[in-house]
Amino acid sequence: MTRVDRLFVHVHELVTLADGSPTGARRGAAMRQLGVVDDGAIAVRDGRIVATGPTDEITREYRAAEELDLSGFVVLPGFVDAHTHPVFARTREHEFHMRCAGADYMAIAQAGGGILSSMRAVRETTLDELTATTLSNLQGFPAHGTTTIEAKTGYGLSLLDEEKSLRALAAAMAESPLTVKRTFLGAHEFPPEYRQDREAYVRLLCEQMLPQLAPLAEYCDVFAEPGVFDRAQSERILTAAKASGLRLRVHADEISPMGGAELAVALGADSADHLGRISDEGIRQLAASQTTGVLLPGTIFFLGKDTYAPARRMIEAGCAVAIATDFNPGSCYTQSMTLIMTIACVRMKMTAEEVITAATINPAFSLQQDHEVGTLHAGKRADFVALDIPSWRAVGYAFGGNPVALTVKNGIPIVANVAEQNPDVFGGGPAVA
Amino acid sequence: MTRVDRLFVHVHELVTLADGSPTGARRGAAMRQLGVVDDGAIAVRDGRIVATGPTDEITREYRAAEELDLSGFVVLPGFVDAHTHPVFARTREHEFHMRCAGADYMAIAQAGGGILSSMRAVRETTLDELTATTLSNLQGFPAHGTTTIEAKTGYGLSLLDEEKSLRALAAAMAESPLTVKRTFLGAHEFPPEYRQDREAYVRLLCEQMLPQLAPLAEYCDVFAEPGVFDRAQSERILTAAKASGLRLRVHADEISPMGGAELAVALGADSADHLGRISDEGIRQLAASQTTGVLLPGTIFFLGKDTYAPARRMIEAGCAVAIATDFNPGSCYTQSMTLIMTIACVRMKMTAEEVITAATINPAFSLQQDHEVGTLHAGKRADFVALDIPSWRAVGYAFGGNPVALTVKNGIPIVANVAEQNPDVFGGGPAVA
Repeated sequence: MTRVDRLFVHVHELVTLADGSPTGARRGAAMRQLGVVDDGAIAVRDGRIVATGPTDEITREYRAAEELDLSGFVVLPGFVDAHTHPVFARTREHEFHMRCAGADYMAIAQAGGGILSSMRAVRETTLDELTATTLSNLQGFPAHGTTTIEAKTGYGLSLLDEEKSLRALAAAMAESPLTVKRTFLGAHEFPPEYRQDREAYVRLLCEQMLPQLAPLAEYCDVFAEPGVFDRAQSERILTAAKASGLRLRVHADEISPMGGAELAVALGADSADHLGRISDEGIRQLAASQTTGVLLPGTIFFLGKDTYAPARRMIEAGCAVAIATDFNPGSCYTQSMTLIMTIACVRMKMTAEEVITAATINPAFSLQQDHEVGTLHAGKRADFVALDIPSWRAVGYAFGGNPVALTVKNGIPIVANVAEQNPDVFGGGPAVA
Repeated sequence: MTRVDRLFVHVHELVTLADGSPTGARRGAAMRQLGVVDDGAIAVRDGRIVATGPTDEITREYRAAEELDLSGFVVLPGFVDAHTHPVFARTREHEFHMRCAGADYMAIAQAGGGILSSMRAVRETTLDELTATTLSNLQGFPAHGTTTIEAKTGYGLSLLDEEKSLRALAAAMAESPLTVKRTFLGAHEFPPEYRQDREAYVRLLCEQMLPQLAPLAEYCDVFAEPGVFDRAQSERILTAAKASGLRLRVHADEISPMGGAELAVALGADSADHLGRISDEGIRQLAASQTTGVLLPGTIFFLGKDTYAPARRMIEAGCAVAIATDFNPGSCYTQSMTLIMTIACVRMKMTAEEVITAATINPAFSLQQDHEVGTLHAGKRADFVALDIPSWRAVGYAFGGNPVALTVKNGIPIVANVAEQNPDVFGGGPAVA
């Protein structure tokens, strides 16, 4: 008998992903390799997984003072959300309804909407206020089963306001149980004061912002898009970022094809994101690279568009595919990875197995966290989520609402979602939702 | 000072819909008339609303032993979901993923899927088991803010199994705090034993099932669709239903145009549902009628289709428009009216005001419950929902997850959704999600 800190037992279906490789991105058929244990258990010590297996085997081998019964739940590795924009000060619901009423991007921009609306809000906000709204945004993720995120700045767009954004993010991270990887996205848009001299903003990014702010982040991202940062500007900024010691991510081929995926691959970026307009050549190059394609189907849905990334062709070509929320106040105001999984199934024709892989080990790889999380192999951090669904096969199918019952981070239950039913009415005590 | 049972105070935005008419369906511009009270309060006695207004006025006029503070929340009338199929025995996630993988309706049917799959499950189930699964399905609605539903049978498709379904529904209703209006949907599909003699099933419906089962329901519905119940068959069944004392609802113009809306109007049905293929003439006739168009955008989304009902044209023509979940195990496995509201905004271009009206007073009218619920006029039942969103303007915008914090039925809090955060990690007590 071995003593551990905590045992989680009688999991209806424990989806370990441990049949496949513990590290690296999974491609093609390997994306459908789950490693499911019926009536499963997880033994945890010092925040890490000691063993997983059938409950009767694990309880024969391990003892713990604390044992949590997860019967009735499906357990998956904690979600890794590899593309979020949580450093903002205000929501933008007005713009959402303008868009639903038919307003186009230009009309919204002229009414003061878009990224520059968030920029004005961030610039008007103190560091303390921005820390508070960022922390409030971070705290929403674990309730949706997410235990690791990538978080971008990009609503400051000046040296001071991007620094404020990075400092707010660092301060918020320190108060949050999430693992957060920080991305500097000063190249999210050209700020108004540089609209007439874009070259000057690119120089500011390369010569001042990147060298000074790189120590506050792990990644640099650029919104590479015709009309925003063109290919040459994107390449200059990303190259300068590398020289400053940052790793790279790229908003690529979202609205118009621009060879964004190819650029990401050429520069050795860890991810190329969006990809609604990726070319066949882009798919081929991505498949042959270590760059993960991070697809954001919630954004396409929220914007009322139909230009979903060609996930099936990408998977069949051997690309490493991840899915993420793109959580932000303008184009995708959700933190729910399970809803993103549904949209990925319905609109991108991914399978339940593929969306699970694309929400766990593949995004972990894109963040260099695949040795730590993304699967439930022994030795990794005990980050996982218990879902109140009948089977892992119901991933995608059970939609709307929040199926997350419990989120566990480093072996510790951090959020339990409970629907407290009035016993006078329902004739019973509280029930987990 | 007047004594009441309970006061709900300091509601950030109290959306009463009390600026408009308390009863009847709202059409056109009247769908955008909300009646919002900032820092609002509701006084409740004997399960009914005594008064609504600004908190300072209400607390000057009324006293109660119990006072609930709803600051930070937006309150709307409880959702009325006018189209659900909760009397089923098993989920059908396998079929969802077959469809995502490209299987068409026929392939799914040949693999044992579709309505007939649910029929077999219901037929194999005892009354007690079916009561238990139905009750479990009913109990999911209040956690999503729904206080009144319409519930259809339609997975029995024989005299005995439809009777079992209606009895299971009645037994489940008795255990649930929801208001439930029952619909007999024996004409959901032709059962296999009548595939070769459809006329015999129509006769069974008209001559035996309807006369015998009518006392167990308030409505009769028919899946009027070429290849299922054609126009003449639908008319015969609905006419027989009327003669048996039932009111009418119709699955109309869902997949192929068949004049289903016109049929519903001609027969004086309370609702025509789906309407993805409604004709211009159908819109004209619906607008001039007392029949409510119940739109089900979640189904179109879940099926991966794009044939959303023309909500804008219908609203502009003066139709009474409602939205509903269509909760069922095959084509829409969700109970979340707030997600349906998002899909209605994004895909059908409805405004925040319109989706609120379409989820409350209009469906209440379609169920003859508009004198009781659907707005927060004094005298109506105190059925309402508190949402954790920044403003009513964020209805639709805040998506994924469940924004419902508290559901109140007959003045009694019945479900509180709580994200219990581990204080060791978050440094605070439980917080309402």
